[in-house]
Amino acid sequence: MKLTLVGAGPGDPELISLKGVKALQSANVVMYDALVHPDLLDYCQPDALKVYVGKRLNGYSCTQEEINPLIVHYAQNYGHVVRLKGGDPFVFGRGYEEIEYARQHGLETAVVPGLSSSYTVPAMAGIPLTSRGFSESFWVITGTTKSGQLSNDIQLAAQSTATVVILMGMHKLPEIMTQFGEAGKGDTPVAIIQNGTLSDERIVTGTVADILDVVADSGRAGAPISNPAIIVVGAVAGLRQRLAEVTQLNRADHEHPISDFRQG
Amino acid sequence: MKLTLVGAGPGDPELISLKGVKALQSANVVMYDALVHPDLLDYCQPDALKVYVGKRLNGYSCTQEEINPLIVHYAQNYGHVVRLKGGDPFVFGRGYEEIEYARQHGLETAVVPGLSSSYTVPAMAGIPLTSRGFSESFWVITGTTKSGQLSNDIQLAAQSTATVVILMGMHKLPEIMTQFGEAGKGDTPVAIIQNGTLSDERIVTGTVADILDVVADSGRAGAPISNPAIIVVGAVAGLRQRLAEVTQLNRADHEHPISDFRQG
Repeated sequence: MKLTLVGAGPGDPELISLKGVKALQSANVVMYDALVHPDLLDYCQPDALKVYVGKRLNGYSCTQEEINPLIVHYAQNYGHVVRLKGGDPFVFGRGYEEIEYARQHGLETAVVPGLSSSYTVPAMAGIPLTSRGFSESFWVITGTTKSGQLSNDIQLAAQSTATVVILMGMHKLPEIMTQFGEAGKGDTPVAIIQNGTLSDERIVTGTVADILDVVADSGRAGAPISNPAIIVVGAVAGLRQRLAEVTQLNRADHEHPISDFRQG
Repeated sequence: MKLTLVGAGPGDPELISLKGVKALQSANVVMYDALVHPDLLDYCQPDALKVYVGKRLNGYSCTQEEINPLIVHYAQNYGHVVRLKGGDPFVFGRGYEEIEYARQHGLETAVVPGLSSSYTVPAMAGIPLTSRGFSESFWVITGTTKSGQLSNDIQLAAQSTATVVILMGMHKLPEIMTQFGEAGKGDTPVAIIQNGTLSDERIVTGTVADILDVVADSGRAGAPISNPAIIVVGAVAGLRQRLAEVTQLNRADHEHPISDFRQG
């Protein structure tokens, strides 16, 4: 009777750890979330039970209160349950709640961290969350808090020199940008990345002052950029453009497009 | 002529991504740091050149100014250079500087993120950086800034509700704890983890008020706990103990020690 939480990473199925693959290979049951890449399920044994538990913002999903007893049920009846979660299970993933519930019910537990989208999605888009001379810290905040209110920490973050990363915050974007504007950061670069590391990745960049217009513009030929998205606010958000310019200056032709950056 | 930055993860060699392994397999040259697990070099082709560039706090290491031209030299003479760095290359890793320098010299570049020790080391020690009711954000700060001074952000962080993670901060621990104490957080839990995810991992826990004594005590039978260490300050740092108690209450014998948590 064992539960292993496994982080599936930000999207690209090659961004799972070797330890995560091993856990999937030894699972009797895999309970997986909506944001998990379907190819990862191919690592399971043919007779492993694969249970979709959703958790997308829209559409069918189980509540946490439904998932917890399901984990125990499957562990008691099948043995080793792997809970496969998008990104990292402990970064806004409610993974600790699952671990504690499982322990309360006598399960052995383990955790295999995943590549959190908070820093890996910006990285693969050419944006380091820290870089000497630009930022010496980063702050990761969820836009969707338990209470539904914008976290008070956003105001402190706006005053700091940290790179600020907001997950699931697109529906609060105007309020968030207002707080940065009031902290005198109208000119600070902002990048927003949707579906990061995947083939349908979308990226827009601007500043605190103009990013709302940029987002509106992104909807001209379809839906505007929206969740699941990563919002990065800070000087480092401008490095993507700088990298493109460096490359432009250096090359004689088009052999080094910015998109090279994403090919691992 | 290509540079791929690859994050090696926090220590345990199974905590590298599949994409990272693929990059190592296709490398002509691997330039690796001190904190990288030696087993990872086994993924390289037999004829790949393996170059140690150090970067430990003490002992031999190349400076960044020496490493940058070496990358270009090896790429020009051998082809594909993998720069294998501990943790994630863009989280205090100076990876962006290497990418920009390489681009300036006409190299193609790519990045494969790594599992940053900032959240994965606490996770595998039973500490989630976020958890509902405990923390809805986390702030990662380096204790070793370019200027050598303690970052002013620590003071803002101490006022926030964020879980605060300080990397490479053991030599500034008294100053850091003073700032949290002055923010009225004497009772806030603190955990310090050295050599996280490895067999020689050491963990001490306490509060802002008493952690300096705990660290001093840890040196009674040898060296006190020190860098490379992760310092976690926040209510979540107490969850490790809570998990141990939950398990204690539930079990009849010793079949579920806390250390199970680390077995992935």
